[in-house]
Amino acid sequence: MRILDLIIKKRNGEALTGEEIAFFVRSYVDGSIPEYQVSALLMAIYFQGMTPEETGYLTRQMIDSGETIDLSALSGPFVDKHSTGGVGDKVSLILAPIAAACGVQVPMMSGRSLGHTGGTLDKLESIPGFRTDLTPSRFAEIIDSCGFAMTGQSKAVVPADRKLYGLRDVTGTVESVPLITSSILSKKFAEGADALVFDVKTGPGAFMKTLEDARTLARSLVDTGRSLGKEIVAVLTRMETPLGAKVGNFLEVEESLALLGAPPAVDRVPTDRRSDDLMEVTLRLTAWMLVAAGIEKTVDGALERCLEVIENGSAWRSMEKNIRLQGGDPDRLYGFLGSHRAPIEAAITAPASGFLSRIDAYSVGMAGVYLGAGRSKTDDDVHTDVGFEVLAKPGDAVKLGEPIMRAWAHSDDAMKLAIDTVNAGITVADAPPEAQAMILEELSTV
Amino acid sequence: MRILDLIIKKRNGEALTGEEIAFFVRSYVDGSIPEYQVSALLMAIYFQGMTPEETGYLTRQMIDSGETIDLSALSGPFVDKHSTGGVGDKVSLILAPIAAACGVQVPMMSGRSLGHTGGTLDKLESIPGFRTDLTPSRFAEIIDSCGFAMTGQSKAVVPADRKLYGLRDVTGTVESVPLITSSILSKKFAEGADALVFDVKTGPGAFMKTLEDARTLARSLVDTGRSLGKEIVAVLTRMETPLGAKVGNFLEVEESLALLGAPPAVDRVPTDRRSDDLMEVTLRLTAWMLVAAGIEKTVDGALERCLEVIENGSAWRSMEKNIRLQGGDPDRLYGFLGSHRAPIEAAITAPASGFLSRIDAYSVGMAGVYLGAGRSKTDDDVHTDVGFEVLAKPGDAVKLGEPIMRAWAHSDDAMKLAIDTVNAGITVADAPPEAQAMILEELSTV
Repeated sequence: MRILDLIIKKRNGEALTGEEIAFFVRSYVDGSIPEYQVSALLMAIYFQGMTPEETGYLTRQMIDSGETIDLSALSGPFVDKHSTGGVGDKVSLILAPIAAACGVQVPMMSGRSLGHTGGTLDKLESIPGFRTDLTPSRFAEIIDSCGFAMTGQSKAVVPADRKLYGLRDVTGTVESVPLITSSILSKKFAEGADALVFDVKTGPGAFMKTLEDARTLARSLVDTGRSLGKEIVAVLTRMETPLGAKVGNFLEVEESLALLGAPPAVDRVPTDRRSDDLMEVTLRLTAWMLVAAGIEKTVDGALERCLEVIENGSAWRSMEKNIRLQGGDPDRLYGFLGSHRAPIEAAITAPASGFLSRIDAYSVGMAGVYLGAGRSKTDDDVHTDVGFEVLAKPGDAVKLGEPIMRAWAHSDDAMKLAIDTVNAGITVADAPPEAQAMILEELSTV
Repeated sequence: MRILDLIIKKRNGEALTGEEIAFFVRSYVDGSIPEYQVSALLMAIYFQGMTPEETGYLTRQMIDSGETIDLSALSGPFVDKHSTGGVGDKVSLILAPIAAACGVQVPMMSGRSLGHTGGTLDKLESIPGFRTDLTPSRFAEIIDSCGFAMTGQSKAVVPADRKLYGLRDVTGTVESVPLITSSILSKKFAEGADALVFDVKTGPGAFMKTLEDARTLARSLVDTGRSLGKEIVAVLTRMETPLGAKVGNFLEVEESLALLGAPPAVDRVPTDRRSDDLMEVTLRLTAWMLVAAGIEKTVDGALERCLEVIENGSAWRSMEKNIRLQGGDPDRLYGFLGSHRAPIEAAITAPASGFLSRIDAYSVGMAGVYLGAGRSKTDDDVHTDVGFEVLAKPGDAVKLGEPIMRAWAHSDDAMKLAIDTVNAGITVADAPPEAQAMILEELSTV
């Protein structure tokens, strides 16, 4: 088999066979084919696409390129959730303990923030003492104890994805639906999940700016999952406004704990309707996890069950147990609540009187990078204590000069740049905007 | 400027600027950008194409990557012809001396055979003593003396093309019209031509199998030439049947000399109607060279002039002078005529009685490779004395078992393989095929 023949075949729009894809991935990983041929093939895939079967073969080969997490000592069912990334997206922190409290086992491997979107690992590490570098055996133990564990991805898992992504990143081939699909699915299945629920975000604050693009990715994830015999649910959700009331690392942990119905020590941080959009998305995704796990038959029944475990405190107990198991110190954490803030504070005010019609998520995400909540390069450090609180949500009546957001920064320069960036994304109108659904579409193999 | 941005820009279907293309070519030639980014860009160009302006910038940058031939001591006009390659295509050997005899100066750099198509250098080198490795100064001197010179391409000319072609060859990006266009034009303009006439062949024996593909390349050559301020004529010609009466290296020289109205010593090899298709193409292309050079106003007038210089012997005298100047020995050459043949001779016979309707050029070309007239790899050696004589052309009445071609080989195995291959491309029908025009279309900036 020659890689040149595979390049020409794909270039001409034909589907590659399972053996051809296996040859490609194995030869690339072992270094026996040069990168200039791999990048030509990737660009041909960018233009010609791949069938769900081809994407499935690619996913399978990528999984087989490295180690997988062995959860066979546990009972399951193992279901995870993955988001394509958004601003204020702290869904994982709320969803995992709720799902665990309902009986799902959640093996969650997360990433770090990059660009305008946040990363679950950075948020978790703002909890004093919390470790995200679990060994595979400790990862399994913690899932067994509290129903979920959250860790970074080991370098030994899916090395082909690491190598391929590095090449895609410098050859203009990142934005390919089958390549994105196999990258996501290979990592998620290698961590031990049997079923996956995807939050495919769409809008100005998401990677998929249009509903059509988001739908294409969702369709690819579901169809490829089906070709691999796995259960997949893809929920398309709106990402125009930052989700919930807070954006930052520790700020998002704070909001998440409050929404889980935290114990008395925590309830200094009240929940309110500013978190409604976040909870709508979170509960819907969690409910689908219960359905995919076979715990509930219907999404409506699953939604009720989720609310129950929040109200009866079992979701919170699962979270607190996880924090301790992953090395976190709940007492120091409680002391941080409402007070772990960078020293420079400023208000962002309404530019006119009327109805707030837009807080652009992308602008807030980029402003977060300027504050140090996120990173523009993978080796940047992040601050745990910077970010934004959203005081008014789109639809609220505002008065000229009234604070609509609050920001925390470590330097005046960063604060100025961040505020200017956020301001460029704020619009006030004479009439309130039309209410918009957060859940746009749902696709499922279930 | 970053090459990644250029890859993404081209991938998204935008046109690159002159500066961007200059950056790309210079950085690739000096090794400052890696080949995996270049191959990704080449594949993006394969899919998105290039405008004539972009192709012109690329051509110009490729010319500037190396040395160019300085013909400024000569008077011009300098016009060359280039063929996309065919079987039995000995047009250059006849056209150059005719054009020279009419007053054109022809700086001809040619290539070697590869795959099913022949190469002018291999044919010339079958003339005893003939040298095709002229220095630039000797090249200019010979043009000055006899009106034309024929040499191989120096490695110092258009090094960017050599490097790019090597990468295209292993990354599935050979078949890109703008890349083919810039590769052809850069080499031809670097050799000193002011105007070019292209023979864009189409049909089963050509690289462009369909008229549509040939038309696309012809249009690209003409439009890109216009963007560079050069005169270009593209003539689309049929390539279904081997051109003329002979296929091979010395066999094609023989036919060419005869058609130039060779002196008594040569006329043992008579010309006949089997060469009509070849002469129709040759005279049309030569006539366009005279028009492009400004020597004749109309193609019809130029055609008459071409016939004149054949009839009055000046085309032949130009050829004989060139042979001596390039080191060839006319006396030994005359001795070869009709006798320089490989030892094993065989006839290919009509498979039925009726009218010969097809001698497939591609099959004959590949059979020529098996005999050793051509090569399958660039470093193969070729035989000068093998090949085919075509005894019957499509349209001729034939009888079952009657010889329709004759072949010469150095081994029985090669002969068997060659004959089987040729036979697979021969068809006899009950009625003669419809007569088909050799000249299909003409495009011109003139």
